[in-house]
Amino acid sequence: MTHVARIDEGARTGARRRVDALAKPLGALGRLEDLAVWLAGVQGTSAPVPPREVSVVVFAGDHGVTGDGAVSAYPRAVTAAMVREFLRGGAAVNVLAGAHGARVRVVDLGVDDDLTDTPPEVRRHKVRRGSGAIQREDALTVDQALAGLAAGRAIADEEVDAGADLLVPGDMGIGNTTVAATLVGTVLGLDADQVVGWGTGVDDETWRHKRDVVAAALERARPYADDPVALLRSVGSADLAAGTGFLLRSAERGVPVLLDGVVSGACALLAERSAPGAVAWWCAGHRSTEPAHRAALASLGLAPLLDLELRLGEASGALTALPLLRTAALLLAGMTTLDSVAPPVPEQV
Amino acid sequence: MTHVARIDEGARTGARRRVDALAKPLGALGRLEDLAVWLAGVQGTSAPVPPREVSVVVFAGDHGVTGDGAVSAYPRAVTAAMVREFLRGGAAVNVLAGAHGARVRVVDLGVDDDLTDTPPEVRRHKVRRGSGAIQREDALTVDQALAGLAAGRAIADEEVDAGADLLVPGDMGIGNTTVAATLVGTVLGLDADQVVGWGTGVDDETWRHKRDVVAAALERARPYADDPVALLRSVGSADLAAGTGFLLRSAERGVPVLLDGVVSGACALLAERSAPGAVAWWCAGHRSTEPAHRAALASLGLAPLLDLELRLGEASGALTALPLLRTAALLLAGMTTLDSVAPPVPEQV
Repeated sequence: MTHVARIDEGARTGARRRVDALAKPLGALGRLEDLAVWLAGVQGTSAPVPPREVSVVVFAGDHGVTGDGAVSAYPRAVTAAMVREFLRGGAAVNVLAGAHGARVRVVDLGVDDDLTDTPPEVRRHKVRRGSGAIQREDALTVDQALAGLAAGRAIADEEVDAGADLLVPGDMGIGNTTVAATLVGTVLGLDADQVVGWGTGVDDETWRHKRDVVAAALERARPYADDPVALLRSVGSADLAAGTGFLLRSAERGVPVLLDGVVSGACALLAERSAPGAVAWWCAGHRSTEPAHRAALASLGLAPLLDLELRLGEASGALTALPLLRTAALLLAGMTTLDSVAPPVPEQV
Repeated sequence: MTHVARIDEGARTGARRRVDALAKPLGALGRLEDLAVWLAGVQGTSAPVPPREVSVVVFAGDHGVTGDGAVSAYPRAVTAAMVREFLRGGAAVNVLAGAHGARVRVVDLGVDDDLTDTPPEVRRHKVRRGSGAIQREDALTVDQALAGLAAGRAIADEEVDAGADLLVPGDMGIGNTTVAATLVGTVLGLDADQVVGWGTGVDDETWRHKRDVVAAALERARPYADDPVALLRSVGSADLAAGTGFLLRSAERGVPVLLDGVVSGACALLAERSAPGAVAWWCAGHRSTEPAHRAALASLGLAPLLDLELRLGEASGALTALPLLRTAALLLAGMTTLDSVAPPVPEQV
């Protein structure tokens, strides 16, 4: 049972009042104003500060959907290779985190490789190698789905206990947009055509195969549309289960999250269904080119900060948006008030 | 006569090749990839660096359109008051520049105040106090329009000579969105209804008056639609003339520009008409809520990086987008290549 922490409405009201008094026309900073007010609510102060301890967690896993023919432009072995690259520091997430002062942690939940050459903490939460082919079998057992959720919760706790004031979920896993599209389609009652995208860049033939895979998986998953745990067992994966647990725990602990692309969007949808109201703790960093992501954000009522046609995953969209969050807080803290600049505006000019 | 500097196509090709080799699916970084390639072309190197010496110039002026009844939510005196605030450091542009490591220069081209309490360099390029009421008289004399253009060119030269590697035009002036809408409407042959927006936040009655003012000004300006200098004289202002000269000179000097909102959009439209191809040196930081801005960007073929409903001016949108430009350069420089992560992908997976 998830108990969502309360947003500080008093802090929001105070921040809105401050925003409205700044030396600018009412509303002229547009969505940066809303962002400052959101930060106030999640930080519990009408004077929010730019997030300083930003923790990125990349949840990695492989997916059985890649077994019956391509649903991705890349072979499964790329997942393990990229996990190793995250540890070496040459991936997009590393560069972005370095540029914007965030730390990156990569966690193997279900990579189809033992990764014995990686540090034990990378593998500590491993649930299994790969997952079932969701077009015809369950992705996980119930125990594995619960283990994935628990791992995500534990990781959120570790990060928050280590001082994180902003959590950023990332993902790595060939085939994961297929799983995410299935989850979003099931929860929102959409058809495969409405949720399947080009992922990392498939061709038309692969897209059609991917759509057929998702259509079959949607068929299998329909009975569980209202049961997040059953959904993760039936058509999810250990890495998406962990992403979901991570988001649920953030909302329990009252720590804000900057969401990334379609994978964290699918997790957010499941988490919000498990714990209505949790979405108040999350901000959408960007909108990717995946149709399932657009649908998930719309359902969650989240307007993305960026829309730059990114489709990489790894938390790359969220980290690209991170400076906007900081900018919003700095504007609120640093701008003078209109009253101090000019006398009050008369009713009739 | 403007001689637009050449974009380095070789550098662009080299940067594109590098982008395509990075450890990510082809195109997965979306518009950040295009941004890195643009930077390569304007910096003349296939290994572009994040802009370091960013110079923001706020062009300030008052506008005769504010004389016959309100076109703005604010009285004219706010222009001079905000110029003083820019010098004190409490305006949005100051906070944003401080956050993102840019320097701010404010230049009075046509503020309706002698501003004798400000440093002489602020007033050195002053053309006149205010401008004509463009719904019924010329904004400037020809000599004043040319003086404004020359001032903008001189300022660009000063900034580039001082080491600027990115120029950012800003604006301050009650009534300036009315002038910008008129210029955009004239150049693109649009009606007042298609270009007039809510500016800093007018009410419906003020919007209708603003539309009538723009309709009258458009009528006056139509004969000069193809003559940028005559347009600036007839329905422009000294501050928009300077903004236009600033952009023209940037393209001659071969220094990139990050554009702000509708005012710099109108200047860009005039400058591109004067010197076709100059637009290659400019990047659109954001899209404001002003319809004339949307029209100007579409005509220029510029896709804005941000669309956050900002409508403040002062270079606030451009500065909010600045981290994206730096992020794009850092990704290109810092990411490893796909070949180094995983063996080449076979044709059939």
